[in-house]
Amino acid sequence: MSDEPPAGYPTSLGTSDAATIRLLGQDLAGELMGTVGFGELAMWLVTLERPTPHQVRVFEAVLVALADHGFTPTAIAARLTYLSAPDSLQGALAAGLLGGGSRFLGVTEDCGRFLADTLERHAADGAGPPSDDAGWDALALDAVRRTRTAKQLVPGLGHPVHKERDPRTPRLFAIAEAEGLLGPHLRLFAAVGRVHEQVLGRRLPLNGAGVCGAALADLGLPVDLLRGFALLARTAGLLGQLAEERRRPIAMDVYTSVDRNATYVEPD
Amino acid sequence: MSDEPPAGYPTSLGTSDAATIRLLGQDLAGELMGTVGFGELAMWLVTLERPTPHQVRVFEAVLVALADHGFTPTAIAARLTYLSAPDSLQGALAAGLLGGGSRFLGVTEDCGRFLADTLERHAADGAGPPSDDAGWDALALDAVRRTRTAKQLVPGLGHPVHKERDPRTPRLFAIAEAEGLLGPHLRLFAAVGRVHEQVLGRRLPLNGAGVCGAALADLGLPVDLLRGFALLARTAGLLGQLAEERRRPIAMDVYTSVDRNATYVEPD
Amino acid sequence: MSDEPPAGYPTSLGTSDAATIRLLGQDLAGELMGTVGFGELAMWLVTLERPTPHQVRVFEAVLVALADHGFTPTAIAARLTYLSAPDSLQGALAAGLLGGGSRFLGVTEDCGRFLADTLERHAADGAGPPSDDAGWDALALDAVRRTRTAKQLVPGLGHPVHKERDPRTPRLFAIAEAEGLLGPHLRLFAAVGRVHEQVLGRRLPLNGAGVCGAALADLGLPVDLLRGFALLARTAGLLGQLAEERRRPIAMDVYTSVDRNATYVEPD
Amino acid sequence: MSDEPPAGYPTSLGTSDAATIRLLGQDLAGELMGTVGFGELAMWLVTLERPTPHQVRVFEAVLVALADHGFTPTAIAARLTYLSAPDSLQGALAAGLLGGGSRFLGVTEDCGRFLADTLERHAADGAGPPSDDAGWDALALDAVRRTRTAKQLVPGLGHPVHKERDPRTPRLFAIAEAEGLLGPHLRLFAAVGRVHEQVLGRRLPLNGAGVCGAALADLGLPVDLLRGFALLARTAGLLGQLAEERRRPIAMDVYTSVDRNATYVEPD
Repeated sequence: MSDEPPAGYPTSLGTSDAATIRLLGQDLAGELMGTVGFGELAMWLVTLERPTPHQVRVFEAVLVALADHGFTPTAIAARLTYLSAPDSLQGALAAGLLGGGSRFLGVTEDCGRFLADTLERHAADGAGPPSDDAGWDALALDAVRRTRTAKQLVPGLGHPVHKERDPRTPRLFAIAEAEGLLGPHLRLFAAVGRVHEQVLGRRLPLNGAGVCGAALADLGLPVDLLRGFALLARTAGLLGQLAEERRRPIAMDVYTSVDRNATYVEPD
Repeated sequence: MSDEPPAGYPTSLGTSDAATIRLLGQDLAGELMGTVGFGELAMWLVTLERPTPHQVRVFEAVLVALADHGFTPTAIAARLTYLSAPDSLQGALAAGLLGGGSRFLGVTEDCGRFLADTLERHAADGAGPPSDDAGWDALALDAVRRTRTAKQLVPGLGHPVHKERDPRTPRLFAIAEAEGLLGPHLRLFAAVGRVHEQVLGRRLPLNGAGVCGAALADLGLPVDLLRGFALLARTAGLLGQLAEERRRPIAMDVYTSVDRNATYVEPD
Repeated sequence: MSDEPPAGYPTSLGTSDAATIRLLGQDLAGELMGTVGFGELAMWLVTLERPTPHQVRVFEAVLVALADHGFTPTAIAARLTYLSAPDSLQGALAAGLLGGGSRFLGVTEDCGRFLADTLERHAADGAGPPSDDAGWDALALDAVRRTRTAKQLVPGLGHPVHKERDPRTPRLFAIAEAEGLLGPHLRLFAAVGRVHEQVLGRRLPLNGAGVCGAALADLGLPVDLLRGFALLARTAGLLGQLAEERRRPIAMDVYTSVDRNATYVEPD
Repeated sequence: MSDEPPAGYPTSLGTSDAATIRLLGQDLAGELMGTVGFGELAMWLVTLERPTPHQVRVFEAVLVALADHGFTPTAIAARLTYLSAPDSLQGALAAGLLGGGSRFLGVTEDCGRFLADTLERHAADGAGPPSDDAGWDALALDAVRRTRTAKQLVPGLGHPVHKERDPRTPRLFAIAEAEGLLGPHLRLFAAVGRVHEQVLGRRLPLNGAGVCGAALADLGLPVDLLRGFALLARTAGLLGQLAEERRRPIAMDVYTSVDRNATYVEPD
């Protein structure tokens, strides 16, 4: 890098002058507000292309599916933080989002990446996409076997509560199909659902976080940012949790119940 | 509090059993996914009542207005954090949201609270809401005078860039009016726009963050959580900023430009 | 501000060139590492003056007093975040610190500010500092009365567990006295302990967070940053909590215990 | 897990009753405050064993080395967050810590892990630790070759500014040697410094973050938490940065300089 200041900081997002605010090259007030939905804008901000209504419907169905899962560790952490620092709503939201890592909220991204990597490897072999279920099944079988051989978990399989069937999964497949958006990631994920038992020796449900990752990847969203959409959805859910904490607080009871049951143990 | 464990942790949000996921008392898969929009759900999660399409249109217009303002301090902070810790997207988003405090992003909440407090004081005096512009102007004049006397700023007035007119303001008034949602907070805010020059001695524009706060308050959203909706909108904007940072990075240049221009000064 | 780039970004902290790293105008490797303690450096970084050994002893006693309070809401939030995102230790620490707001961790700063404001008002009246206990008592009585009249709480009084006496309080007074650092903030705080019963009608203990705020203010640390030292202390405590979470996890049990006891309630 | 409440939440850290506060099995007021230093306590909280004065000196030298590196991305992010939300010091500190991830602050942990893994593999082969430099060099050579073969970077090598020699490195070796704490991780790291040129074809300095990781590992601190000590050190540095931001603000200039140089580019 030279010693000169940069020629400029490029952006295709928000810019403004005295009279106008532009976002994504559009007039924010005249062309976006009241015309474009919030989910629509969220996709557009990432892809830089206005999504179609079909894409928006699938995208918003994913956000709705991921918004709130009740008393998750992240919801509890947000409520405890709000209890301690009620003057800083942004801190409570941030604390909740910080739990959006590898273990609970990460499945969406992990599953999207697993599917995308499998498709990419297949394409790199010079093969076109499978043309029928048998072709998808073969591809899925190979991917599940590789994952098993590498002693890793297949993302998107199994759920601690919905042991038989996660109700979000068939619903999202149906929505994507109705909108003409059943793409290669979802097709491959469906095939994983059909074939994994051959390798793993037991049947697990395709979970909701996984199918959301597959659907987001089919929408053309970057795989490395899929976790971000789960976090966007969760932000709405956390706002709901904090609104409820104001109406019917539980954080003090949670804290008290832990503190009261503390048992001192001597270090080993 | 007694020594007994709490009878239970009450919630009206997400709950689930092996076969079903419920959210807000609805079947998540069957009744919400694909049927309810994301903005609609975000309102519902906070108010516990399904919003009307009119309310959703105003609400989403607000979120669209607040989503991204270009290279704000929060956008830069998120990009710098992503540069330093690219493995933790949630950390970069959280860092961006943590700037959503009193100074930049807080105007929405401050303005909503200023208007709500004024209306509450008026109602506590036993007076009904004003019936014409003259009535609203008198109420606004009194509120601006009190604020001035207390040596505080009137929230929602003035903008560093849009010195004459913030284009979001007339647009949001028009949308709210078209949807039949021009309520007391927006009416009072309009009156503040008409009368403040009499007290402050100069004419300032009603800014976009302020009109968003007025509109959210008219939607019946709790004033103490208004900042939260600005943060939800900003989460989508920050995702856009991070997607752009991946495509056209600027954070390293920003860092280098600051570091290279560091000048050591002796402590006083 | 003009359109010209800033002449430079001034700093008295860290700078470096190819051969040397300087911090606070010192050679980091040659003059600080191995010579200056960590607490000593933390004070120096804020005050820009090297503290005396007496000051360091009081300062470190405060940090030790504030480092860990067991299963606080912030410790639980950090552990839950670590459970959810074990790949991001920084996220778990940040989540824990975000609870360092007004309610639990803020007392240190609130108390320091209350004492500093009282002393400033007294000095503004042209009066010198009190010369005996009777003088301090009169000043404290006035301050407690004003606070009571304003319907505010006197910071630093009372504790949910240590209802009679907080053991940190006499100990920190003794350390400050031994080091010749019993300054006006601590003297005033002691007087608050003697006189508040006359105004409040009951006797409350001076709590540990409060005495820490008084001691930090007497060390000349800026009142607006006192919360920061509580956060520094807490960072060490949170590291201890996370190390323990690795050895003897409780976060999954806390989460399960909350989730299992969720009770759905219909919205009102 | 059964439906019964947990028998208790075990902890060896802070517990209290009406009269006493205990930490690590000690009386906080009587045995720790004024007696134990802050760095000493921070180690103790993690290891559950009181460190020796020799260990404390090495540990504090590491913290001093890592506390502040001037205008790093994390320092700038913290200052920008403080500009936006000056009411929430904890948010600005948290934003700064969130940059403590893989890229900049992670070297300490990565280097400690690289060394620990190498030693563990060596021990698993049934071999005792090398008894002379030649033995260490052979072990280092093997580790560097494996890393190179795996197309990964050797952590702790090279620095963008200190291209010849990082002044912290010889200093920390000297301190550890003086305290009798030159353990296997530091010895192996020194050997990496001697042999890497044979594999990489050029000579790189052992950097400060790397040597700190080696020293922390030799102190017996858990490798998976090494990043945490860098974050503890950085918390003190960030406090210094925020204190300076109050005295000599730069965040507004940084923001303005970025915002003013924004250049709109059409999406591709």
